[in-house]
Amino acid sequence: MKALVTGSAGFIGSHLVDRLLATGNAVVGYDNFSTGQRSFLDQALGNANFELVEADLLNQSRLDEAMRGVDFVWHLAANADVRFGTDHPCRDLEQNTIVTSNVLEAMRSNSVRNIAFSSTGSIYGEAEVIPTPENCPMPVQTSLYGASKLACEGLISAYCEGFNMRGWIFRFVSILGERYTHGHIFDFYRKLLDDPNALHILGNGRQRKSYLYIHDCLDAMFQAVQASPDAVNVLNLGTDEYVEVNNSVDVITEHLGVTPQRTYSGGERGWIGDSPFIFLDCQRMRNLGWQPQQTIRAGIVKTLQWLQQNRWVFEERE
Amino acid sequence: MKALVTGSAGFIGSHLVDRLLATGNAVVGYDNFSTGQRSFLDQALGNANFELVEADLLNQSRLDEAMRGVDFVWHLAANADVRFGTDHPCRDLEQNTIVTSNVLEAMRSNSVRNIAFSSTGSIYGEAEVIPTPENCPMPVQTSLYGASKLACEGLISAYCEGFNMRGWIFRFVSILGERYTHGHIFDFYRKLLDDPNALHILGNGRQRKSYLYIHDCLDAMFQAVQASPDAVNVLNLGTDEYVEVNNSVDVITEHLGVTPQRTYSGGERGWIGDSPFIFLDCQRMRNLGWQPQQTIRAGIVKTLQWLQQNRWVFEERE
Repeated sequence: MKALVTGSAGFIGSHLVDRLLATGNAVVGYDNFSTGQRSFLDQALGNANFELVEADLLNQSRLDEAMRGVDFVWHLAANADVRFGTDHPCRDLEQNTIVTSNVLEAMRSNSVRNIAFSSTGSIYGEAEVIPTPENCPMPVQTSLYGASKLACEGLISAYCEGFNMRGWIFRFVSILGERYTHGHIFDFYRKLLDDPNALHILGNGRQRKSYLYIHDCLDAMFQAVQASPDAVNVLNLGTDEYVEVNNSVDVITEHLGVTPQRTYSGGERGWIGDSPFIFLDCQRMRNLGWQPQQTIRAGIVKTLQWLQQNRWVFEERE
Repeated sequence: MKALVTGSAGFIGSHLVDRLLATGNAVVGYDNFSTGQRSFLDQALGNANFELVEADLLNQSRLDEAMRGVDFVWHLAANADVRFGTDHPCRDLEQNTIVTSNVLEAMRSNSVRNIAFSSTGSIYGEAEVIPTPENCPMPVQTSLYGASKLACEGLISAYCEGFNMRGWIFRFVSILGERYTHGHIFDFYRKLLDDPNALHILGNGRQRKSYLYIHDCLDAMFQAVQASPDAVNVLNLGTDEYVEVNNSVDVITEHLGVTPQRTYSGGERGWIGDSPFIFLDCQRMRNLGWQPQQTIRAGIVKTLQWLQQNRWVFEERE
């Protein structure tokens, strides 16, 4: 099998590349290195089955070329910055929706039939039903990020119907683990490196969030592709837990051995479009024979341990 | 009030312009005349309160300029060709999703806060619940047209949340009436003009569809804007009836006094992504004090009468 992984130098993408190579697949990695890290591909680049294409997904002809002979697309490239959507309102449209259309067009012109896609629990907006199942009442979008990802889901589903493709759409909670380079643990740890005695928290700290450990996430994706063969497969991916932001801070400060004074920006939401409660019903994925191995707490600690060993990621982002 | 109407030379847009002018509003009509008809604006062009901007919505600077001083946007411009989506897969993305982003950006840069938008019952795909309410279980998209319109809904909702706008999202069934220039009545009438003795029908003729008369549709939109002041208002618009395609053909052939031999392409769907049963639950709109005045049958007859008096529309499309 020859797989193409978009966002192959990213957090999830690079782990996926490693696993695909480890199981004997040929892999084309596609990344523009806007946020990807070359070092995440160190292992892959030493493998003769790996080819790296350093290009932008907005470059349709380059993408068409990279798609030749591919059997399966893992489309993970995205602008994943849910928090700053309103600072640059067209970025999610361009980097998520339009790019996904380009990927689908490249697949169509190369007769590639299978696509797995990283969507998000953010598409549920402020969900009416919690834990939220995949077939919950149609939500109102509250973030440009969620809106753009839902638009991608629609495109993929319509291509599956129109062009006889198969799609696996994964609605992730936040993913934690090694190579994690943005999100609340990253932000809190950086702040605590600067000043271990004070920590400013967006919102009231009572926001309830769900997290999933990277290798549990990858296990689920591979399991779904094997066990769920419908034309369009929509699957939530998360654990059966959630934590308050304050609990998350407890784990972080305890692990780091610091006791900062906490201050809060206030309000139920950390930013515009933030959902105060994200908790997904993952029974559909459970029914395919998967279950997560790590708790949220373990995922947070593993993430911190990796960040502690890789403080260069903070310098990269200055 | 100064309103901007996109797609102002279209079927619904031109009627909307006439009604806005009749109630004393200033109106900017924006149309690229790709499918719009100049003659639909004959009455408007004689009104000093009407300004026509002949431009494309992909032209952001022209759009920004047209948006100056506007209080309310009625965004009706669209590629409405659900049937031919797979022939040119990027057209819905460009003409619907990207264009809607442009409209929202022009609103944002001009501090315009209100937008009404013509979405579609096609976003329900093959609905699980019929009649389908606005908060039905999240559907899988089956057409590029539906997917693009759902993407527009998401953008509008996220802008309302992020930039303090207000949005009215109308999920239309097919609209009938004077100035109708594409759809099944148009196609059937044209075929019967060519040959009154034979009529080829896509699918098995048992597809169940809903229709709404143009002036009922406009009544509903104006009523909703007055009576539903939420940040995001999502409203189905249809009648409490549906008809089979065969029943629709009965009304058409009876009105025209012809008895063609009917042949069928077969299958439950007329084309890829066609929904075999579209019937919307419009209770939410009813609760705002609106009800349709015309039956589907009356709408079909009014449409035919207009087409009979305006056979030039068939020549335009040759």
